[in-house]
Amino acid sequence: MLPDSVVLREVGPRDGLQVEPPLPPEDRARLVDALLRAGVRVIEVAAFVSPKAVPAMADAEAVVAALGDRPGVVRTALVANVRGAERALAAGIDALTVTIAASPAYNQRNVRMTIEESRREIAAIAALAAQGGVPVDAVISCAFGSPYEGDVPPAEVAALAAAVVEDGATSVTLADTTGMATPRRVDELLAHTGPQVGLHLHETRGTGLVNLYAGLQAGVRRYDCSVGGLGGSPFAHGAAGNVATEGVVALLDDLGVHTGIDLDLLLEAAALAKELVGHPLPSPVAAAGPRTRLSPPGG
Amino acid sequence: MLPDSVVLREVGPRDGLQVEPPLPPEDRARLVDALLRAGVRVIEVAAFVSPKAVPAMADAEAVVAALGDRPGVVRTALVANVRGAERALAAGIDALTVTIAASPAYNQRNVRMTIEESRREIAAIAALAAQGGVPVDAVISCAFGSPYEGDVPPAEVAALAAAVVEDGATSVTLADTTGMATPRRVDELLAHTGPQVGLHLHETRGTGLVNLYAGLQAGVRRYDCSVGGLGGSPFAHGAAGNVATEGVVALLDDLGVHTGIDLDLLLEAAALAKELVGHPLPSPVAAAGPRTRLSPPGG
Repeated sequence: MLPDSVVLREVGPRDGLQVEPPLPPEDRARLVDALLRAGVRVIEVAAFVSPKAVPAMADAEAVVAALGDRPGVVRTALVANVRGAERALAAGIDALTVTIAASPAYNQRNVRMTIEESRREIAAIAALAAQGGVPVDAVISCAFGSPYEGDVPPAEVAALAAAVVEDGATSVTLADTTGMATPRRVDELLAHTGPQVGLHLHETRGTGLVNLYAGLQAGVRRYDCSVGGLGGSPFAHGAAGNVATEGVVALLDDLGVHTGIDLDLLLEAAALAKELVGHPLPSPVAAAGPRTRLSPPGG
Repeated sequence: MLPDSVVLREVGPRDGLQVEPPLPPEDRARLVDALLRAGVRVIEVAAFVSPKAVPAMADAEAVVAALGDRPGVVRTALVANVRGAERALAAGIDALTVTIAASPAYNQRNVRMTIEESRREIAAIAALAAQGGVPVDAVISCAFGSPYEGDVPPAEVAALAAAVVEDGATSVTLADTTGMATPRRVDELLAHTGPQVGLHLHETRGTGLVNLYAGLQAGVRRYDCSVGGLGGSPFAHGAAGNVATEGVVALLDDLGVHTGIDLDLLLEAAALAKELVGHPLPSPVAAAGPRTRLSPPGG
């Protein structure tokens, strides 16, 4: 029995665009706007991080300002430290995302901190966010394996998930940063954490949708996805993009799992994303169209 | 509970190469050889069809001759009519594949026959093959939907599957020719046919592996796949390649489902396939490597 409905958190404008050449804030806001028109209701719109470290995420405040208030929409932003959280909260963001890796080597490479240092930073960010009633989702990178250490025992990942909630995170998302998850690994880790987590899946080895399906069967109701399949990790060799929002919505539509997102309008947003980044996107559904789109007679 | 083991029928040297510029028979035999070294035991090595219709499949006899007898290996070939079956049987092939579409419009376009005409051809081929004790697998194209007519009722597809067995086919494979299957459609059709069928899945919409996983959960033990993800239909708009053998083996290895295929040797065969066709292959695992391949220290 699959869930009746799930919440898709769109991460294309942040996780997707951060590995692309920088786009002006107005274009990033345009992409967010197109996604909201399609029915997206939770969306990562920016990262409040150093523009030197991530040039494509510069001017986060301008993106948020260009969007304005959006009733009924959760505009979330990635922050890496208290300074970033202060900026995000001052800009009026609705929710924060923080990351910590289940792999010490990946954490060091990604944010130049030990796991303990990352936990202390998350605790400080969460304390600040709590003052304004702003939720903080902790994304655990390499939750299904690390490109440096290999498999990470599910009990260790689950312990880290519990620890960051103790540190003040209001929710946890398990990320398959380098595409090492399989349905078996999803089942095993969810048996330790329970289904009250989000899943952030990658297509590095073409297993994004099969892992999402395993998550659905286990009762998980929150998934990250990225328009056009934009994204990937600049710190992991061969890391391909996030699971594509169009592919997820097309699949869930046919499975009868409600997302609130209109596939045709979503494909328009994907076309805009492609135009903005100036290269083809990896999403198969963006290329082939929905399964309900038939060939013209004689075509 | 998933099956302990499955049989993968490798279709790259036929279904994959038929849409590529023609390769000489020796190169096609080299690719087959590399796949056999990796542990493949059922493999479509050729199509005995008109070289005018499918230039890349010319000289099927020369491919079979270059391979020679391979004890323990099932060398299968596609045939479209009795003349082709005669050629294949004379060449000493171990098994035949025939196709028929669940979609009248697709059947007409693919083989210029009505469904009834195709059934009569299959009956004649099967009668001939039966004389030599050669099995005939009937692949039902568009079993999960047609790009022309849309969805095909599962009961109709199952009736066609039963009909071709009555006509003499020894087994049936359900093909998702244009990537319209989803786990729900796989479940529905298998509820009508039972799990004693093969599945031939495409990545047109990125759903090949999730549909394969649904098939596994329903107890199906035969799957077609193509090295490197080579292939696609020249008659269906936007049809992407077959599910990639490397992706299937990598997934099944981690799920504990035995295939008898060695992933490292299979990746060598994929590298040869890429070299022979002269362009990158769509297979993510061929690009990213197995999940167990870690980044070098400091890499």
